Amino acid sequence: MLFENPTIKEILKHYRVIWALGHARGLMGWDSETYMPRMGVEERSIAAAEIAVLSQKLLLEPKFVELVEKASSMEGLNEYERGVVRVLERAIRIYKKLPPSLVAEKAATSQKAKAVWREAKEKNDFDMFKPYLAKLVELNRQTAEYLGYEEHPYDALLDLYEEGLKTREMERIYDAIIPASRSVLEKVLEEGYYPQHHPLEDERYDAKALEEVNRRILDLLGYPWDRGRLDVSAHPFTSGIGVRDVRITTRYEGFDFKRSLLAVIHEYGHALYNLQIDERFIATPLAGGASMGVHESQSRFWENMIGRTRVFVETMYPLLREKLPFLEKYEAEEVYRYFNTVRPSLIRVEADEVTYNFHTLLRFELEKQLITGEISVDEVPELWADTLDRFLGVKPRSHAEGVLQDIHWSMGAMGYFPTYTLGNVIAAQLRAHILRELPNLDELVRNAEFKPIQEWLREKIHRWGSMYPPQELLAKKLGEPLNPEYFAKYLVEKYVDKRI
Amino acid sequence: MLFENPTIKEILKHYRVIWALGHARGLMGWDSETYMPRMGVEERSIAAAEIAVLSQKLLLEPKFVELVEKASSMEGLNEYERGVVRVLERAIRIYKKLPPSLVAEKAATSQKAKAVWREAKEKNDFDMFKPYLAKLVELNRQTAEYLGYEEHPYDALLDLYEEGLKTREMERIYDAIIPASRSVLEKVLEEGYYPQHHPLEDERYDAKALEEVNRRILDLLGYPWDRGRLDVSAHPFTSGIGVRDVRITTRYEGFDFKRSLLAVIHEYGHALYNLQIDERFIATPLAGGASMGVHESQSRFWENMIGRTRVFVETMYPLLREKLPFLEKYEAEEVYRYFNTVRPSLIRVEADEVTYNFHTLLRFELEKQLITGEISVDEVPELWADTLDRFLGVKPRSHAEGVLQDIHWSMGAMGYFPTYTLGNVIAAQLRAHILRELPNLDELVRNAEFKPIQEWLREKIHRWGSMYPPQELLAKKLGEPLNPEYFAKYLVEKYVDKRI
Repeated sequence: MLFENPTIKEILKHYRVIWALGHARGLMGWDSETYMPRMGVEERSIAAAEIAVLSQKLLLEPKFVELVEKASSMEGLNEYERGVVRVLERAIRIYKKLPPSLVAEKAATSQKAKAVWREAKEKNDFDMFKPYLAKLVELNRQTAEYLGYEEHPYDALLDLYEEGLKTREMERIYDAIIPASRSVLEKVLEEGYYPQHHPLEDERYDAKALEEVNRRILDLLGYPWDRGRLDVSAHPFTSGIGVRDVRITTRYEGFDFKRSLLAVIHEYGHALYNLQIDERFIATPLAGGASMGVHESQSRFWENMIGRTRVFVETMYPLLREKLPFLEKYEAEEVYRYFNTVRPSLIRVEADEVTYNFHTLLRFELEKQLITGEISVDEVPELWADTLDRFLGVKPRSHAEGVLQDIHWSMGAMGYFPTYTLGNVIAAQLRAHILRELPNLDELVRNAEFKPIQEWLREKIHRWGSMYPPQELLAKKLGEPLNPEYFAKYLVEKYVDKRI
Repeated sequence: MLFENPTIKEILKHYRVIWALGHARGLMGWDSETYMPRMGVEERSIAAAEIAVLSQKLLLEPKFVELVEKASSMEGLNEYERGVVRVLERAIRIYKKLPPSLVAEKAATSQKAKAVWREAKEKNDFDMFKPYLAKLVELNRQTAEYLGYEEHPYDALLDLYEEGLKTREMERIYDAIIPASRSVLEKVLEEGYYPQHHPLEDERYDAKALEEVNRRILDLLGYPWDRGRLDVSAHPFTSGIGVRDVRITTRYEGFDFKRSLLAVIHEYGHALYNLQIDERFIATPLAGGASMGVHESQSRFWENMIGRTRVFVETMYPLLREKLPFLEKYEAEEVYRYFNTVRPSLIRVEADEVTYNFHTLLRFELEKQLITGEISVDEVPELWADTLDRFLGVKPRSHAEGVLQDIHWSMGAMGYFPTYTLGNVIAAQLRAHILRELPNLDELVRNAEFKPIQEWLREKIHRWGSMYPPQELLAKKLGEPLNPEYFAKYLVEKYVDKRI
């Protein structure tokens, strides 16, 4: 038994119903994006909001909070038990510090803002969205004040998505990767080996055929179909409904097949994390990931450091060629270059490995200044254009391609974007560590032997669920703290030396 | 506004979260039978049990109960408001009377009993299931005692599924329909016009083709695809997740296509009920049906009194012929007779309109005696065989075809079977009333104009949701109480006079 302490056992007994509501919310979220009839949305929204409030209420029940406080001051808890206490204390602390009125106002504002954002994006009308953005910035500013911080108000927001992450640390990470990214980008554009555009982007595919490809790839990756599904949704996502029920989705746009295929591999990375959590954590607060950043490192590792490698493309090439007739005209090497086009572009979600982090940095810089009040929402479009121009030499031709491109701000999420870059950085660090223990990584991929890689990830990351805060997990399991240098080196190794 | 009274408004505000949990449970139930990965079952069971207990706890919160009690003694409530109070009072009364230990024991026993029943049925081993059945009978006996009754302990159980239904009333219903059913059956078997078997039962179909047929039929019936879905499950069912989200399922066994097709029409009947509930009832206790029996009357009406009619078969025949090539050899009249085979059989769910109610009567008789202790579970198989022999002249050749055929007892449900017959009886009564107002019913069906029928059902039954107890709803909207004579007449009109 992992959980022996009677107080912890009592806590876990009480927690089961909160976990159960999380399970239901997970399913409701998945269903909303996949199979729910269109008109079901209103009742679903009511139900989701009610259950969210109920979950919070149950978490803050005095009896429960008392138990957690009691356990917190106990000595002799094992690491699992300490993990339970840490996760719950953190959740309780956050909920307790935020007045319910603020939480409700944020929820109501973002509910409306999401609808307005959708319309504003369609109409390319920033003015329409601006008052909502201003309100959400203000609410995030209040959130930061209620949560408290030592150095920078943005620290409090970062911590919501990445436990313990500080603005200063994130700046250090960008400092370590951005100059390298810039010089790699210059080199790549100069050489043209990795093209800016590839004709395969325009080849139209049959959705059924590509779905078969995606399923075959998931077969090869060992995705357990008795514990998961592959469905279709407007935006690909992973839904961890349970440790034994982790579902992924992708989309089929009919052209540029790598988008659908690499989304599947990306989501597979997220799914594998949840699927490999210690099953004894089921129905406990440990049955999740360590953080957004660590979760994203898993999806990015599989998408980029497996899926976009030459050896992976070569391994999958016969399958691709069999199912996608237009590939007759393209050798494996061409598919590899198609998977790895590099171009200064306007849209974050379509960005390649080399330019991606400029996009999150842009948002990081703007969010920090919005939160401190150094800039106002009026200035955002111009600053956006100027900054992107400075970073990548491109400027949005419309608000839809610029400030209105992402849903995040309309959801009130500020402090979230940096976790994407954190994911890229951690993925590169993991890859370097995997290579020390599995120097034959390429050979494994060539033989579609993914088991040793999965096992490595299980032992180092997945099985521990939410036991450790992200930085502690890395330090403990890798023997060194987060180190962004790996990412800079990885970019050079791949895009300059062309060895990956 | 339907709900004006401040106390009622307060009640409804509190109730929303209970409704939300019902929404989540509905979705979880649907997902379990359709898309859930196989290994997800354990976590799903934990979550479902936790949420069930939580719902009950919220319903019994002293503050909520007080509000309902306060409203109960108020004068001047409108009918909608009185409906809210009645539904909640009833739920609270039932939960309050049953000790949590009994509820928990029943849940735990039936959880195990279901698994044992499945295995026992497979192995044809009644002894294996017997101790569980005995325990569940005992728990139902205790349930009846806790709930209280005036005449017969079985009254208390009937009331759980059909508000206000008494054993004596159910006996009166059987008395009114069984002799007629028997004489119709004799006539049918003698004449052979409605065959006992039909060669179409053995024709194999292509599942994709039949699914198209099913969808086309749902199109014709006006099933709103933006508020529903058709999926596949082992046993067909309807899931009312919301008033605007009502999903149905069917199955494709590959032969005997009427099973799949008529199941779709049956479930459509259930779905239409939920879909036509007054939308102002959303998220209130009124957003459900009046009772199991009234719900079943809707499914049986559409399945039998529309789906199995000559005119419906004739109307659908071109579509069927187009999609199911083997129908080349069969005229519409043959398909009609195939839809209406009549035979004394062993399995309730496969029984035709003439013999169906003998099957529920058999269970009604056994359940009554089990609950009073007049018979023991040991005697059930023999009594089962003897009774069925007496009713229909057939005897099960195995326990799997006899006492182990239905899942209900393993779920601890006793008092449920009679509601199926109630559904048949109410359906016939509704049909007679519809014919008074829509004497051109046949013509409507021939032109696939189902709108007037739907409108009639909406006005008389559907829109009222759970506002009235079942008997009151019928009396109020039909102008007469439940009358089983209609069913007896219907059987003669169809199976003897051959006019339907």
